[in-house]
Amino acid sequence: MPIVRVEMWPGRTPSQKAELARVITEAVVTIAHTTPHETIVIFEDVSKGNWAVGGVLSSEAQV
Amino acid sequence: MPIVRVEMWPGRTPSQKAELARVITEAVVTIAHTTPHETIVIFEDVSKGNWAVGGVLSSEAQV
Amino acid sequence: MPIVRVEMWPGRTPSQKAELARVITEAVVTIAHTTPHETIVIFEDVSKGNWAVGGVLSSEAQV
Amino acid sequence: MPIVRVEMWPGRTPSQKAELARVITEAVVTIAHTTPHETIVIFEDVSKGNWAVGGVLSSEAQV
Amino acid sequence: MPIVRVEMWPGRTPSQKAELARVITEAVVTIAHTTPHETIVIFEDVSKGNWAVGGVLSSEAQV
Amino acid sequence: MPIVRVEMWPGRTPSQKAELARVITEAVVTIAHTTPHETIVIFEDVSKGNWAVGGVLSSEAQV
Repeated sequence: MPIVRVEMWPGRTPSQKAELARVITEAVVTIAHTTPHETIVIFEDVSKGNWAVGGVLSSEAQV
Repeated sequence: MPIVRVEMWPGRTPSQKAELARVITEAVVTIAHTTPHETIVIFEDVSKGNWAVGGVLSSEAQV
Repeated sequence: MPIVRVEMWPGRTPSQKAELARVITEAVVTIAHTTPHETIVIFEDVSKGNWAVGGVLSSEAQV
Repeated sequence: MPIVRVEMWPGRTPSQKAELARVITEAVVTIAHTTPHETIVIFEDVSKGNWAVGGVLSSEAQV
Repeated sequence: MPIVRVEMWPGRTPSQKAELARVITEAVVTIAHTTPHETIVIFEDVSKGNWAVGGVLSSEAQV
Repeated sequence: MPIVRVEMWPGRTPSQKAELARVITEAVVTIAHTTPHETIVIFEDVSKGNWAVGGVLSSEAQV
């Protein structure tokens, strides 16, 4: 405990994920008082064609 | 708010997903009184080899 | 198949949820060509104290 | 009902997943008194580069 | 690793959940070759008013 | 985008959750280069009776 799940569009590098995992784990350990080795962080890459905001797929959105 | 997540077997086209995202968002906005740009729809394609009903993977099911 | 999951703040009435389940199921059946009795819709009520946008819990957000 | 979701690193064979789905479904049916055809098991393969324990991605962990 | 998540209607007793956790963990350890202390099982009780099949909330379904 | 989900045992105060949401959002914005107002953090309190490690519910575990 705890389990943290991060859903983002693809494109983050392994080192960005490594850094995120490290910092999020640190935050959870420090603020929520858990121990690091019980803290799991899972990343899910969700493509823009599978992510819609306002009823429009992000793959088709005009930015 | 809100977040809608749709898990289906693969095979839906981008335009089917776009249509689904549009109609689901419309439904949530109209019925649950949210604003469209705060409504997120996420699709997850789950292969038949990762989906079991009645203890049998759908990839192996006799239809 | 499929499974649809709707996360919203609490406050929707049973009849709003019933209507949402009906309309979303209809959309999935019509657009993604599934059969109704295989379509599951699950609602999750997430309190504003458990939902943050922009780093601020919605329970504390100034609207 | 119910829905069981199993997140693991990739590498399990289809026959391991088939066996897991069968045994988990049997357990749920027997212990929680559900009927098999209403029991869904979904597998999610999460790569080691998307799974961190103790703030370290499993792809980078020294075993 | 792995994480197993079981969504069911409420009503299972603590001892049914304990038994399910034990048996599912055993299955995962035996079949997927994981170690028990890395295997997490999480239960989520979803009320019938939050669970719809075929577009009908289970709280309103005629059995 | 992105959506972060934190599952923990109950017991964290609103101000711990507020602090966690703030720090996690900051980390995601800084490291993954997203904008704060598109970053959602959701907390899920999972009771020890619904959380098992090594096949044993945490509500029954001997610490």
